[in-house]
Amino acid sequence: MRATYMYGAGDVRVIEATDPTIELPTDALVRVVRACVCGSDLHPYHSMPPTPGGSTMGHEFIGVVEEIGSDVSTLQVGDFVIAPFAVSCGECEFCRAGLQTSCRIGGFWNDAHLGSAGGQAEAVRVPFADGTLVPVPVDESADDALLHSLLTLSDVYGTGWHAAVQGRVQPGSTVTVIGDGAVGLLAVLSAKQLGAQRIVLMGRHRDRTDLGRVFGATDVVEERGDEGIAEVVELTGGLGSEIVLEAVGHRPAYDQALGVVRPGGVISRVGVPQYADAPVGFATLFGPNITLTGGPAPVRAYIERLLPAVLDGSVNPGRVFDSVVSLDDTPAGYAAMDAREALKVAVRP
Amino acid sequence: MRATYMYGAGDVRVIEATDPTIELPTDALVRVVRACVCGSDLHPYHSMPPTPGGSTMGHEFIGVVEEIGSDVSTLQVGDFVIAPFAVSCGECEFCRAGLQTSCRIGGFWNDAHLGSAGGQAEAVRVPFADGTLVPVPVDESADDALLHSLLTLSDVYGTGWHAAVQGRVQPGSTVTVIGDGAVGLLAVLSAKQLGAQRIVLMGRHRDRTDLGRVFGATDVVEERGDEGIAEVVELTGGLGSEIVLEAVGHRPAYDQALGVVRPGGVISRVGVPQYADAPVGFATLFGPNITLTGGPAPVRAYIERLLPAVLDGSVNPGRVFDSVVSLDDTPAGYAAMDAREALKVAVRP
Repeated sequence: MRATYMYGAGDVRVIEATDPTIELPTDALVRVVRACVCGSDLHPYHSMPPTPGGSTMGHEFIGVVEEIGSDVSTLQVGDFVIAPFAVSCGECEFCRAGLQTSCRIGGFWNDAHLGSAGGQAEAVRVPFADGTLVPVPVDESADDALLHSLLTLSDVYGTGWHAAVQGRVQPGSTVTVIGDGAVGLLAVLSAKQLGAQRIVLMGRHRDRTDLGRVFGATDVVEERGDEGIAEVVELTGGLGSEIVLEAVGHRPAYDQALGVVRPGGVISRVGVPQYADAPVGFATLFGPNITLTGGPAPVRAYIERLLPAVLDGSVNPGRVFDSVVSLDDTPAGYAAMDAREALKVAVRP
Repeated sequence: MRATYMYGAGDVRVIEATDPTIELPTDALVRVVRACVCGSDLHPYHSMPPTPGGSTMGHEFIGVVEEIGSDVSTLQVGDFVIAPFAVSCGECEFCRAGLQTSCRIGGFWNDAHLGSAGGQAEAVRVPFADGTLVPVPVDESADDALLHSLLTLSDVYGTGWHAAVQGRVQPGSTVTVIGDGAVGLLAVLSAKQLGAQRIVLMGRHRDRTDLGRVFGATDVVEERGDEGIAEVVELTGGLGSEIVLEAVGHRPAYDQALGVVRPGGVISRVGVPQYADAPVGFATLFGPNITLTGGPAPVRAYIERLLPAVLDGSVNPGRVFDSVVSLDDTPAGYAAMDAREALKVAVRP
């Protein structure tokens, strides 16, 4: 089958890979209907050292179950499924608590210990299929709009939702979202769904922030750094924002979050931090009683809650996809996202 | 009047200071009945550079209102009052929200902009008396046990409570408390009051951890660092602690908190951090979805909630005081706490 591998910074190739097969009785084999490129895929796209063997890519996909192992009990051949970006057993303390990203034996699609491969491919062997996959009552012939919205439930929508939930957004909240990528925009949508009254979106790409307004942003701040902070503080009556959803992951975004958050407020991070240490002392987090929260979203825990509005069309998170490429054109999809020519690229095998 | 000043590391003196007076119509003048030395007073006691003019000391006291300014409306001369460690106006957005430590115009007892002085003295001018002081139906002739428990409401009990509340302790919680100082022990008491099922106290001073057991600790871990972490993880079934209350403030305590907290858990800090930066990246806070919270406790917001059980004797937080000195002996009180000969020293002017 054809599958996407990265061999170093800027070096993505679609190659002929070994067809996946059922290896363990808890596996399922899924034919990919749609996959996509994630903002977090751009981190290795910028920094990956040359790797002759390559690295399997893609952690977001939807597809159809083609085969199941003998222990799989919740899925049937032919089921249409959403694959969250984390593989989870469904049975350990953390899975039962809805924190599937901390599953004691699961991991991510490219984890060596799982032996699984990425979703930017024609098919995927899914470990712990019962615990990982979520079947949905949809046919693969559904229109792109619905397929794309379902695809967001594998990562970016659940991640934006996680930001908002961990940030404790509630009716009337004042929220600032840092970042106008797909996760930031879906954090706006999530905050809106949770009843936020004021949603300030910090982003500088007009086409993206316009979509942010569609999703519920009440204000857009294009400036970054001190200028952007001053503008948000002014917009919030000099107090700052009760809740900040940080959907970037770079250190300046952390500093920006510290600048715009109100004393007693919450900074909820879902952008994968590209730094190890950061200010947490009296002058930053401690003195004003700021709470720092967030992490990789246990998106599987959120699909049931988010699915109905996707199925009935009352929300359209799939609007973050502004480009669709064939599997063989996946490298061009990376390049387009990297050049900010595409917000988010869907891959159609 | 006599008052305590610090002139440098290890250099505490009780001097003849100018008698405080009403300076603003919102002031009250309070005669101090009991003050005390705080664990956080030991930070400058270790590190303060020589300061010829000295620095006024003491941020915890109870006393009797001797005089009030013309705008004071909630207090009367003769009222017995608790003075929280933060001066607060009572009217700004943050005071109304119960975050008096972030009062827009208040501050701390030794803040230059307030012109107020510390509580380790015979009397104190209290700015924003209506917003700051809490009158309680007690006579100053009450016994030491009650006076000491009331004194803890000015800081250490409210601070332990803040740790537990911010840590979201609830019935059934598994909690680890780092630090066996007065705040740590009262964090144990607070966690117990909030229904924690398992309370692991990390501390190495047997007399203190014994009091911790009286307050509700179910387990005591004397070891620090990796050994202590391993013991807590084992005690918690290999999972770690849902909630960690960090009542020390030094960087090793932060690292210890990271080591014992469970994925999805909360680290609630009330020890004043003696560091500016710390690990917050994927490998520490982010990956396992750890929430970091806490800060200076708005103890005023908690007095009403905590007072009844103090008044009826069903809790005795004042047991943290194991030494009482006269005001002139305050320097000896600092030395005793620094040498760990005293857990917490009360000062009787």
